[in-house]
Amino acid sequence: MTETLHGAPVLDVLRDRASVRDYKADEVADGMLEAILNAARRAPTSSNLQAYSFVVVRDAERKRRLSVMAGNQKHIVDAPVFVAICADTHRLSGVTETVGKALAKHHLEMTLVACIDAALVGMCASLAADSLGLGTVMIGGMRNDPAGVAAELGLPDGVFVAFGLCIGWPNTKPEAKPRLPEHLVIHRETYREPDLEAGLAEYENVLSEHHRHVGRDPDEPWAERVGKQFSAPKREKLLAILKERGFGFD
Amino acid sequence: MTETLHGAPVLDVLRDRASVRDYKADEVADGMLEAILNAARRAPTSSNLQAYSFVVVRDAERKRRLSVMAGNQKHIVDAPVFVAICADTHRLSGVTETVGKALAKHHLEMTLVACIDAALVGMCASLAADSLGLGTVMIGGMRNDPAGVAAELGLPDGVFVAFGLCIGWPNTKPEAKPRLPEHLVIHRETYREPDLEAGLAEYENVLSEHHRHVGRDPDEPWAERVGKQFSAPKREKLLAILKERGFGFD
Repeated sequence: MTETLHGAPVLDVLRDRASVRDYKADEVADGMLEAILNAARRAPTSSNLQAYSFVVVRDAERKRRLSVMAGNQKHIVDAPVFVAICADTHRLSGVTETVGKALAKHHLEMTLVACIDAALVGMCASLAADSLGLGTVMIGGMRNDPAGVAAELGLPDGVFVAFGLCIGWPNTKPEAKPRLPEHLVIHRETYREPDLEAGLAEYENVLSEHHRHVGRDPDEPWAERVGKQFSAPKREKLLAILKERGFGFD
Repeated sequence: MTETLHGAPVLDVLRDRASVRDYKADEVADGMLEAILNAARRAPTSSNLQAYSFVVVRDAERKRRLSVMAGNQKHIVDAPVFVAICADTHRLSGVTETVGKALAKHHLEMTLVACIDAALVGMCASLAADSLGLGTVMIGGMRNDPAGVAAELGLPDGVFVAFGLCIGWPNTKPEAKPRLPEHLVIHRETYREPDLEAGLAEYENVLSEHHRHVGRDPDEPWAERVGKQFSAPKREKLLAILKERGFGFD
């Protein structure tokens, strides 16, 4: 792409961003996607290891199968581009072999490095796309069925999809969802127990106001939803499958 | 802060960014730091769990002790602001208790969610700071001594520092370090084994050119460094300490 893209200012993009699940059928040009992914590749990376890969999916049937694995998330089908953001220690194994050594990948630190590297580039890709007027949503549901996803994308051992990223032109632009009050999240010098009760009451009010404003039925309280969804383990097979796929947790 | 900050365009910030390890003594104003962290809090978060916290450290002695734990990284002392980017399931435990339940946190998925949420907000904080002319560097060395860091910052169980973020005014602005060739990192539709040998040869050339250009002795080849540093496990106590601190890997 010869034209240089700049995008909107960082703080404006962050202030206005919201996950987009409703896309137009319009394509995202190859040149624009390339600019987004190559900008994202400037993300910092632990010890310059670059322990991640992108798999760009445009094929409609493949997106449909991935959307089923993610629990029928229709926006994966509707968005013209789906990028699998992979934690990748496979390439590093190959690199290490070229100098006659073997990568010590069967330990937790390397797994964390790969997951964090993937999250950093994925975040940058999302902001780069947002800054150009595109919309994005991250798909943690790729971890529902890591073995199925790996088979679909032909991933070798040492690669798994940390999350997916839908990219497309927003059909409707959702309003930014309120975050927890600052005093629950930002600590000074040391971690102090915040006034959780007061903070929660404040947040439930702001969230239900937001839901009324966007014309959605007031959701159940946030605390109730967290309690309901996360008092039982989720994705219980994840460890076994990731270990099988060459990731270490020792 | 009443003035609205915008910052430089996303794609320009990404293109020019490089980790800064050389800082002026000048302070970062509270209002500016608040704008950065609150913009970062707009990052996407898995199921709106917001499973992270920030601990902002400005105290010189505390920064000095943290820098020692990170393996004597002088820039932690020199940067006026150090933000510990924490994976946090502790707050969610408290939230779940308010509705009479217990958070099922002793499983890998919740640990990954918290690490990825932390990485996403940390990345956004870094770009927001960069966009205002500040410099940043992420400090994975916080994982050298997670127990010492937790004691220093008073972290409760269920909180650990995924990485730190130095923020300050750059004394010198480093040049962006080249990334691996695109064909090693970006796959189309499925993961294809790239031509690693050709890609590596290309990268070693570009990297040594970069080192010459910035007046640094040509480093040892990247593949050699990866092989030397990562053929033995790093941070081997991480799993035991994180488990002890309430994180699950089941």
